[in-house]
Amino acid sequence: MQTTITARPLTAQDFAPYGDVLAAEGQADKIINQGFCGRWHDRARLDFGPDGRAGISIFKAEPRSLPYTLDLLERHPEGSQAFIPISMTEWLVIVAADAGGAPGRIAAFIAAPGQGINLHRGTWHGVLTPLHAPGLFAVIDRIGATPNLQEFPLEVPRTITR
Amino acid sequence: MQTTITARPLTAQDFAPYGDVLAAEGQADKIINQGFCGRWHDRARLDFGPDGRAGISIFKAEPRSLPYTLDLLERHPEGSQAFIPISMTEWLVIVAADAGGAPGRIAAFIAAPGQGINLHRGTWHGVLTPLHAPGLFAVIDRIGATPNLQEFPLEVPRTITR
Repeated sequence: MQTTITARPLTAQDFAPYGDVLAAEGQADKIINQGFCGRWHDRARLDFGPDGRAGISIFKAEPRSLPYTLDLLERHPEGSQAFIPISMTEWLVIVAADAGGAPGRIAAFIAAPGQGINLHRGTWHGVLTPLHAPGLFAVIDRIGATPNLQEFPLEVPRTITR
Repeated sequence: MQTTITARPLTAQDFAPYGDVLAAEGQADKIINQGFCGRWHDRARLDFGPDGRAGISIFKAEPRSLPYTLDLLERHPEGSQAFIPISMTEWLVIVAADAGGAPGRIAAFIAAPGQGINLHRGTWHGVLTPLHAPGLFAVIDRIGATPNLQEFPLEVPRTITR
């Protein structure tokens, strides 16, 4: 078992099995506002299930530090969940493959300043872990009346380093 | 006619006729993640019309400076549009009441670091005007195949100051 996991830089390619990287990377899809603004268009695969709708919430989380002890993963079976940092600071993203309804192999990424993510519906992930103040994020996720959280405590905690 | 408009601090109360202020202001609605995170829940009145869906795009806009010359307003009749700054910097928000299908009285606000907005469907507004680099925003707006932009050039440009 991997008891220590090294976080690597977040890239769209490496993150593709888990979700989308939301950032002004590469060429803009469109230039708008008389040349003053680039638009990277519709970059998240949003899915709020049959009984949900999109909502925007604000999260303010305590900054964590590395090495970080991971003892819980969770997922939202009914919806995607996007995290947009409201600060130009790096933050820690932890995800895992699914292995028959439980988390499988765990991966950790350091999101660079300016990078947000959208977790695809049902993706196992750690809780929100900013590495610096203010720990402020906009979260675009499913609003709905039916259950949408599965938690999976890890019997053997993992250490996340960089 | 108001040819010079003084921008005032953005508050939820003053902005209510135009949209929602998205910020970690006042008490969190919920404390999650074993006490490590506050959630200000579902703070935007999203509306993407009958033929649209939510999307997340990234905008990168040139910073502007004050006094700013406003010569165009626009609106999206088919959908709401939220702007989340990906930096802790103030930015300029310009909106207008509707007066029979054209912009009416214009208002300008300085969003404080950490404040995003959601423009309600059909609200007249200026183009995205960061006041500082990097000018990076996540935009949650309507994705759809039908027209969703009305532009209104101002015969008499206005000067926005603080």
